Amino acid sequence: MSINLKRARTIIRKALEKGRELELKPLSVVVLDAGGHVIAFEREDMAAPGRFAIAHGKAYGAVMLGMAGTAQMARAEAQAYFMAAVNGVYGGQVIPVPGGVLVRDKKGTIVGAVGVTGDTSDNDAIAAQTGVEAVGMTAEI
Amino acid sequence: MSINLKRARTIIRKALEKGRELELKPLSVVVLDAGGHVIAFEREDMAAPGRFAIAHGKAYGAVMLGMAGTAQMARAEAQAYFMAAVNGVYGGQVIPVPGGVLVRDKKGTIVGAVGVTGDTSDNDAIAAQTGVEAVGMTAEI
Amino acid sequence: MSINLKRARTIIRKALEKGRELELKPLSVVVLDAGGHVIAFEREDMAAPGRFAIAHGKAYGAVMLGMAGTAQMARAEAQAYFMAAVNGVYGGQVIPVPGGVLVRDKKGTIVGAVGVTGDTSDNDAIAAQTGVEAVGMTAEI
Amino acid sequence: MSINLKRARTIIRKALEKGRELELKPLSVVVLDAGGHVIAFEREDMAAPGRFAIAHGKAYGAVMLGMAGTAQMARAEAQAYFMAAVNGVYGGQVIPVPGGVLVRDKKGTIVGAVGVTGDTSDNDAIAAQTGVEAVGMTAEI
Repeated sequence: MSINLKRARTIIRKALEKGRELELKPLSVVVLDAGGHVIAFEREDMAAPGRFAIAHGKAYGAVMLGMAGTAQMARAEAQAYFMAAVNGVYGGQVIPVPGGVLVRDKKGTIVGAVGVTGDTSDNDAIAAQTGVEAVGMTAEI
Repeated sequence: MSINLKRARTIIRKALEKGRELELKPLSVVVLDAGGHVIAFEREDMAAPGRFAIAHGKAYGAVMLGMAGTAQMARAEAQAYFMAAVNGVYGGQVIPVPGGVLVRDKKGTIVGAVGVTGDTSDNDAIAAQTGVEAVGMTAEI
Repeated sequence: MSINLKRARTIIRKALEKGRELELKPLSVVVLDAGGHVIAFEREDMAAPGRFAIAHGKAYGAVMLGMAGTAQMARAEAQAYFMAAVNGVYGGQVIPVPGGVLVRDKKGTIVGAVGVTGDTSDNDAIAAQTGVEAVGMTAEI
Repeated sequence: MSINLKRARTIIRKALEKGRELELKPLSVVVLDAGGHVIAFEREDMAAPGRFAIAHGKAYGAVMLGMAGTAQMARAEAQAYFMAAVNGVYGGQVIPVPGGVLVRDKKGTIVGAVGVTGDTSDNDAIAAQTGVEAVGMTAEI
């Protein structure tokens, strides 16, 4: 089961609704497929212009490493030079903090990742998780 | 009048509907603001994975140069080295062909750009134009 | 209300006058629009040749992240790997220290950023703030 | 005799005045020193956001190669691969067309370059030349 465009739209809509419910700052949400390629993205009004790159960096690192944002942050705090080196081989495209969420289907297979940015990293992750669960998939934050 | 997220969604939805009506190949559509930053993007199922970069490159060149895809293509055909050099200063982010459409508000001010990719460049431009006109703005193809 | 060229000139002139009044080292000042694009720049005589990139990096990070230099520096000191990663996704164009000042209009909307470099970061920020306030806008340092 | 900030301001002001006199499209003007580093830049209201990079690319190529835009264009038309290779070694920062003007002092020494963009390349060069001559220097277009 993959993330098709219809599911990606639902993930984004539900993540943004969660942001409004929790009164978070304006959010930006990207959904990537299992190859790390963009399926869909939305940036809420009043979000900073550069938010695509941050959302993308959170999700891209998750899917490319098969490691969600929380685990990436732990690794960055333990071994900053390692995550810096990882960024070297991935062209500087990885943002190793929460808000980059791995998406697994019912068999546990990674089918993509969601990246959320705009509020605190932990709140970003909550919004992402809400979106993923709305399509019956599992979020690894 | 700027392109807010609501208008960007409508542009994408109408561009994709036009693609289905004309039985085009799966399309990908990006909407950028007046500074060339991504507001929203969608890639239809079965489109090739790398379509974000192509859609983005069409729209990005349009907004950064203030010149739509058709005019960019004419310049590239007349002076290939010029468009190659332009791409150098813009980090290789410009795709100078139709499907990159400038969006003007009712006063004629450029408020962003739309990039469509997936079918022929000319059909991509038709889909983009349809989306732009659906929000009462003017498309310069 | 946006930063037009006339206002950008005033911001630069007043920032440089403040530098002379405080007897700061030669300053360089850039003004960016809400999309992070250069409107105007000036480098005083005897400033080091590479000052454009530093001034630009301070202002660019501010506008792209919607976060002024002081807040960026706090984040860099708390989580160095995060600001390093942010720089990766923004092409190494961010200088996360004071002197990168967000510009808000009377409604509080971010309309651009000013970057000043040449003296201490704190003095750079004072010069930037003086320039911004001279056009009736609000500086977030 | 070098291009100090006062002269750079005059060059820009006179180039922009020439543009208004000839009813050219909105112009952007950069002044570089003999090392290819930015002294000053201005972008007129309504110019496309990406104009700094184009103006800079015209002037940078001129000063780095010691060859004005017209001569660069002739070389690009005769030997496109050569100018492409030049761009490789200069990090893709060269736009080899008219509008990139070398500035010589009274002894004939190159003291910098001016880059103008916004109208046709030939009109851009006229505006640049007008600015340079206003400070008693010689423009090689």
